[in-house]
Amino acid sequence: MSELVGNLLVAQSGGPTCAINASIAGVITEAGRHECIEEIYGGLNGILGILNEDLIDINEEKRKTIEGLKYTPAAALGTCRYKIDFKKKPENAARDMNRLFEVFAAHNIRYFFYAGGNDSQDTAHKIHEEAQKRGYEMRVMGVPKTIDNDLPHTDHCPGYGSVIKYNATTVMEVAMDVGSMATDGGACCIIEVMGRSAGWIAAGTILAKRTEDDAPHIILLPEIPFDESAFLARVKEVVGRLKYCVVVVGEGLKNAAGEEIGADKTRVDAFGHPVLSGAADRLAEIVQGKLNTKTRTVKLGYAQRAAAHYASKTDIEESFATGVTAVRAASGGQSGFMATIVRTSSHPYQWTTGLRPLGDIANVEHFIPRDWISADGFLPNEKFVEYARPLVEGELNPPTEGGLPKYVGFEKVRVEKKLTPRGNGTGAAVK
Amino acid sequence: MSELVGNLLVAQSGGPTCAINASIAGVITEAGRHECIEEIYGGLNGILGILNEDLIDINEEKRKTIEGLKYTPAAALGTCRYKIDFKKKPENAARDMNRLFEVFAAHNIRYFFYAGGNDSQDTAHKIHEEAQKRGYEMRVMGVPKTIDNDLPHTDHCPGYGSVIKYNATTVMEVAMDVGSMATDGGACCIIEVMGRSAGWIAAGTILAKRTEDDAPHIILLPEIPFDESAFLARVKEVVGRLKYCVVVVGEGLKNAAGEEIGADKTRVDAFGHPVLSGAADRLAEIVQGKLNTKTRTVKLGYAQRAAAHYASKTDIEESFATGVTAVRAASGGQSGFMATIVRTSSHPYQWTTGLRPLGDIANVEHFIPRDWISADGFLPNEKFVEYARPLVEGELNPPTEGGLPKYVGFEKVRVEKKLTPRGNGTGAAVK
Repeated sequence: MSELVGNLLVAQSGGPTCAINASIAGVITEAGRHECIEEIYGGLNGILGILNEDLIDINEEKRKTIEGLKYTPAAALGTCRYKIDFKKKPENAARDMNRLFEVFAAHNIRYFFYAGGNDSQDTAHKIHEEAQKRGYEMRVMGVPKTIDNDLPHTDHCPGYGSVIKYNATTVMEVAMDVGSMATDGGACCIIEVMGRSAGWIAAGTILAKRTEDDAPHIILLPEIPFDESAFLARVKEVVGRLKYCVVVVGEGLKNAAGEEIGADKTRVDAFGHPVLSGAADRLAEIVQGKLNTKTRTVKLGYAQRAAAHYASKTDIEESFATGVTAVRAASGGQSGFMATIVRTSSHPYQWTTGLRPLGDIANVEHFIPRDWISADGFLPNEKFVEYARPLVEGELNPPTEGGLPKYVGFEKVRVEKKLTPRGNGTGAAVK
Repeated sequence: MSELVGNLLVAQSGGPTCAINASIAGVITEAGRHECIEEIYGGLNGILGILNEDLIDINEEKRKTIEGLKYTPAAALGTCRYKIDFKKKPENAARDMNRLFEVFAAHNIRYFFYAGGNDSQDTAHKIHEEAQKRGYEMRVMGVPKTIDNDLPHTDHCPGYGSVIKYNATTVMEVAMDVGSMATDGGACCIIEVMGRSAGWIAAGTILAKRTEDDAPHIILLPEIPFDESAFLARVKEVVGRLKYCVVVVGEGLKNAAGEEIGADKTRVDAFGHPVLSGAADRLAEIVQGKLNTKTRTVKLGYAQRAAAHYASKTDIEESFATGVTAVRAASGGQSGFMATIVRTSSHPYQWTTGLRPLGDIANVEHFIPRDWISADGFLPNEKFVEYARPLVEGELNPPTEGGLPKYVGFEKVRVEKKLTPRGNGTGAAVK
């Protein structure tokens, strides 16, 4: 394999996590060790910024900033939810692809790394195929990222360990609070976590449970259709026994008809406007209304995926390693792969990294195996616990300033543009 | 002052915090140094447990459990929201008071410490007065606790520093997340925090703001009547400038008529049942509906007051010290006081503890001075920041087990009951 000399471009895409910056720190750090890689550029806001030729020069950044990325949440390069969709918008997609390769050529980009989830791996795959079709020599690698943990062919996804560490900690703390207040009247608390279609995030809170009576007492997964009467019976049983019940619900919980519990169309205000709420609030109404048990809700929302102050050291190390692996593979001549995490042992936990063709990853969703969930569907079982437990190990204890975390940000020194701006014809797509 | 020899009873009351266990650790640790104090008992679930003679023997607990209380959230003794209300229920109150003194006498309780907020200090005050009236020699001390920070005559309240440290960290992290996703379409995120009447908790998130453009961009305090059009204009201005806007709202935000924004009576489902939601969801509807800006919400709920994994070391040390101070004062012959935190310097931050008569504390609510808030009411100013900044300093880094915090709990070895159970006549009050 002949050595390919040129510049590197790295970008981030999709919902941020507190580990996606560690992944690009891995890319940047490893890139500095390969002579074939000349300049290191960052694309702002993913594909969207690359289309606009909004590139920054990473070599202008301080070393301590690159180091700080390991414990800094969100996407330091900015991110986007922009899809190059050849099926629905073939004309736009073709125009976007042309533009991307204009930018690549103008800046002699020969190494392209895209960190993201399912859609982003699909984008990376399309760019890889397009480069081959055009005969434009470029190594394209996907770097995995998603708190949803729904990418196939990797033991788990960077970002997942941290989100379940924070969420399980929160469930443990909230449960202690609710439990210590519980008197004969009984109390229920419903904690809503992310996860629109796969229940990995909700399931991960099982780690808070160290003894039989510990919370969470019920975990409602989007994969298991919601059965109101079985749910109420279980809440009643737990409250009767312990005086309190802590329920975790994945935001995408659905009924048997496949409708999301939290997106109930009957919920409108006096003016007929839909009421914004969510699965936890809806469940609280049901518990209060049917069982008359005082119920409170917690909705962690973005806080869970940004909680770098309590990130998993294991997760951050693995995220960094996927970035390193992607660069080594590309430097070694490979293209069209996603770096993966490979578990080699659970006791003790040992892992390495691997590679998997992007074509195997794109648009495939990975769900919790049914036999990792109890028969009644209310809790993941010991198979899931064995899988998830090692992922939350270790703390980073990010540096603080004035008692609050001291995170880093890029200076963002722009790379001089070489192309004419995208015309009005593409303006709609940029929005 | 003659030495009073007898047993000590400590109990916790009201909503838990992640510092209220540190306060009772202070009581217990200091009590062990005073020979006049013989047995150390804990009352389970506050006054409610004492009425039921549910006492535990703290001397049966391990030393490491007492040490672990410093970083353990919730109320290790259990808590309650039980009020001895001579105004509304004079008969029940008189019966309760009789029963309490039966329990005190049966167990030779000569030192009583009650850790809690406003209502709890009121209860402690009534017990102190009742003891004097009855000629029952007992030293009664209040130990302050409330995340709401609304107790008067103490610079701030144990629990407050920790809740604003966690909340400000969360606001910082969520803002980085939202900011990194923001593209031309704009985005808004609304974070709901506790605080029904006083805005101290919401205001404390200002500490996340290190530069002019940092979040939070707007803080809505319950003290300042909500002005929808001014709010929308500000959100629009911030989104226009930064592409995103992070709003913090205290759950008790009210309109000019004094009605809570989150308790809108017009919000009913198709069956006419009230819809459970909150201030953040209501505001999100307004922003999405009127500005068409994509808006997400976070509702921290109990998670914020239980977040011991990121507690303020300063807060925990102060909380412990209030417990110590209360015991020293009681041992020295004083009764009817609450321990307070006294700030002696802001630069550098220095503090000591003090005492204040319970009669000055009970039923007085302490609000943010108006001149600590900007003229437009949307942000606390530098006076508030100077006040709040030192309170979040320092981390505890609680020990972990399997990557999650390892908190402690009491063994709860019961003290043998000496009285007949409360009859049916008092059953209603126990519920």
